[in-house]
Amino acid sequence: MSDKGPERITPRAEDYARWYQDVIRQASLAEPAEVVKGCMVIKPHGYAVWEKIQRGLDDMFKATGHQNAYFPLLIPESFIKREAEHVEGFSPELAVVTIAGGKPLEENYVIRPTSETIIGHFFSRWIESWRDLPLLINQWANVMRWELRTRLFLRTGEFLWQEGHTAHANHDEAKEEVMRMLGVYATFAEDWMAMPVIRGQKSESEKFAGALSSYCIEAMMQDGKALQAGTSHDLGQNFGKAFDVKFQNTDGQQEYVWQTSWGVSTRLIGGLIMTHSDDNGFVCPPKLAPIHVAIVPIMKAGKEAVVTEACEAVHRELRDQGLSVVFDQRDYKPGFKYFEWEQKGVPLRVEIGPKDVDKGSVAVKGRLAEKKEFWERPGLGERVSAWLDGFQAELFESARKRRDENTVQLDSWDDFLGVYADGNSKFVLAHWDGTTETETAIKDETRVTIRCIPEDAPEEKGACIKTGAPSKRRVLFAKAY
Amino acid sequence: MSDKGPERITPRAEDYARWYQDVIRQASLAEPAEVVKGCMVIKPHGYAVWEKIQRGLDDMFKATGHQNAYFPLLIPESFIKREAEHVEGFSPELAVVTIAGGKPLEENYVIRPTSETIIGHFFSRWIESWRDLPLLINQWANVMRWELRTRLFLRTGEFLWQEGHTAHANHDEAKEEVMRMLGVYATFAEDWMAMPVIRGQKSESEKFAGALSSYCIEAMMQDGKALQAGTSHDLGQNFGKAFDVKFQNTDGQQEYVWQTSWGVSTRLIGGLIMTHSDDNGFVCPPKLAPIHVAIVPIMKAGKEAVVTEACEAVHRELRDQGLSVVFDQRDYKPGFKYFEWEQKGVPLRVEIGPKDVDKGSVAVKGRLAEKKEFWERPGLGERVSAWLDGFQAELFESARKRRDENTVQLDSWDDFLGVYADGNSKFVLAHWDGTTETETAIKDETRVTIRCIPEDAPEEKGACIKTGAPSKRRVLFAKAY
Repeated sequence: MSDKGPERITPRAEDYARWYQDVIRQASLAEPAEVVKGCMVIKPHGYAVWEKIQRGLDDMFKATGHQNAYFPLLIPESFIKREAEHVEGFSPELAVVTIAGGKPLEENYVIRPTSETIIGHFFSRWIESWRDLPLLINQWANVMRWELRTRLFLRTGEFLWQEGHTAHANHDEAKEEVMRMLGVYATFAEDWMAMPVIRGQKSESEKFAGALSSYCIEAMMQDGKALQAGTSHDLGQNFGKAFDVKFQNTDGQQEYVWQTSWGVSTRLIGGLIMTHSDDNGFVCPPKLAPIHVAIVPIMKAGKEAVVTEACEAVHRELRDQGLSVVFDQRDYKPGFKYFEWEQKGVPLRVEIGPKDVDKGSVAVKGRLAEKKEFWERPGLGERVSAWLDGFQAELFESARKRRDENTVQLDSWDDFLGVYADGNSKFVLAHWDGTTETETAIKDETRVTIRCIPEDAPEEKGACIKTGAPSKRRVLFAKAY
Repeated sequence: MSDKGPERITPRAEDYARWYQDVIRQASLAEPAEVVKGCMVIKPHGYAVWEKIQRGLDDMFKATGHQNAYFPLLIPESFIKREAEHVEGFSPELAVVTIAGGKPLEENYVIRPTSETIIGHFFSRWIESWRDLPLLINQWANVMRWELRTRLFLRTGEFLWQEGHTAHANHDEAKEEVMRMLGVYATFAEDWMAMPVIRGQKSESEKFAGALSSYCIEAMMQDGKALQAGTSHDLGQNFGKAFDVKFQNTDGQQEYVWQTSWGVSTRLIGGLIMTHSDDNGFVCPPKLAPIHVAIVPIMKAGKEAVVTEACEAVHRELRDQGLSVVFDQRDYKPGFKYFEWEQKGVPLRVEIGPKDVDKGSVAVKGRLAEKKEFWERPGLGERVSAWLDGFQAELFESARKRRDENTVQLDSWDDFLGVYADGNSKFVLAHWDGTTETETAIKDETRVTIRCIPEDAPEEKGACIKTGAPSKRRVLFAKAY
């Protein structure tokens, strides 16, 4: 926001982690809060992306029958302790309120790291009979997990997310819900974020603390590392038992409900950045771009009125197409503006100068194009809309291609070590003997984790890449954020 | 949500406070969290109203040039102490985090009661020159103020709100912004909530802790009490000085910025309830109603298919008008359904039975109508839309009439005492000598406060209703929530 000259973005090849930070800074997406450890400020341009993510997902949640609600930020400390695995998983990361209204509290509260416990409590009050089921709730909220090593969007002390919480009359319906919402996440990632994902099940050691089983979507970042972009959990009756959530079934008997939970967070923005952006800055798929088109006037003395009028006409025409457009009349040189809109990830730039007006055309440059094109003025609005659709598809295709080119099937431990040498990462499909011991050994030796057991992995006889023990299907390995 | 029979709503005349609670419970808008002191759960039907409020306001904020952003939930304790009046006002209500990640913190954090301090800190990093101004930011967030006496929506430990924070190059522009946003609030209250409001300035003792001056919109509830529904503050340079928010002006000199802040919260839902609802439950203006129309089939053996088909056709036609419609096919008796949709504040009910199908009409009943009407089937969609517009206007008109009928000009202290005897309240326009001493004396004796100095109050010579000292204009008195 400040009147500074453009700053340099470190190239990916030079320092990938630094490139990521630079892109975020130069696109004004967010910044570290610093005075609040591990937290961030989401700046207007970044928050606008989050708003688009929210709208897109929220419509999909409502279309699948969910309703939004809001539960307390604070959770009695004792609640967290009721589910044994849950407390073990979350205790180290809790922020605790011990004083309120000037007095020490009798029982401390924790700031929600996730809301299964407090929502379980209310479900036990709301659910009485099978007629109350399924209960399909979603919450948009902030949550807090005190992390030691943080990184903007990807891992911060506080983050914004949505958490779905549902209760069902039997396990089959709950499992259907888990897969339905995993599907919603996959569709959103691919159709809106242009980020291809692999769906699958988490291994025992990577599942949510308190779940029977967890499912995820995993995306590949440009450095070959995996990003877990969304999770959907089959909670079984674990929280139902911990919070006494019972219902009377159609036979008149009391049963515990079967629950699910599922969430995505502002982490998605990190995934978006690392899927598409380049050494010139942020690249944003049109469906999530806060600004679709930036119009830059090329002024010449005596021609200001003509150029302004032409820009305004284009502005109106593009807005009428439902696009978000900036007509950049600031008192800067065109080159400065090009640079800024490029860094901010605006998909298309339109330049209009006196010559363009004379010729009845405009100069356009796509965010990833090597050079300008000249488009005729008539029909411009429709052409821009069509171009944006094409750009959305192109971004997905290019990410999918890169992902596929960097996914390998391996059967030898030496090859596996080779792929992950020198800090590199790829997606490796390899056999695993299914034990937590082997998973841990691989992780300790290579920092590579099992991202998921892909849902479309065909049955195939094989030998564990590490131990040689028998295996029935390949799982997905990668280093991960 | 549970399969219980309808419960009784206490009539307003019997116990107004209880009526309020009963309406909220029976409309499933919210419930006390109980396990989290003073906090509430906003249930799906209540949250749906909040979502409509958010969309409406957010569009108005964006149309006036504001951008959303997100700042940390936690604020270093020292920040709160930097502005002297601010710390005095908010200290008693703070919730304090003293432990995080398993360890005591070196410096405690407070959960934001409002964000002037932390946002001031970031403004000081973002603003360098006059070119960065005005900076127009809004945040949608949860905040926490530990209150002793709480009441659903009106006053809760945690609540949801938006807080606008802006910085300007001079006091005049800041003052314009303060009044612009007060105007946005007044428009929203009247046009969307159908709740007439009086705009004005707060007295010195009622202004925001840290502001130069505060402005508000005040609405009258059905019991004659006032509800402060929104506030807009001229912060002057107070926070600019406390957080060193300087800019280089066009003369090249360093100056502190002039700031404003303004907010409305989930409290608006309390105002909505107490403006329109009746002894049968929630009454909701169509612009904020989660459901506009409930269609209830009147089944008769052998005619189920015909009736269902007719209901579905009406459902489609109304949805095509952009309305939110429920076709209630649940296995309950019609009377039970009528009762429920009435309690939930659905503006219009449509009943369709075999006779209606034969006659080519439908039975409709407005939420406040005494009896059913029969409307012809052709053109139904448009007629319903027009009726909803009329109902919105009618609710406003009726609230305005009640407010005006219960507003009096008084000049004697005995009359003043008479109006407020026996727990009653009205809006009283009376002279006041302008001193905090008199204001406090009146409050101590009667629990009546100065709601505001109305902006349209004409100059008029008079004598203070309490002390007889000279006064230049009448101010607005009332008991308040």
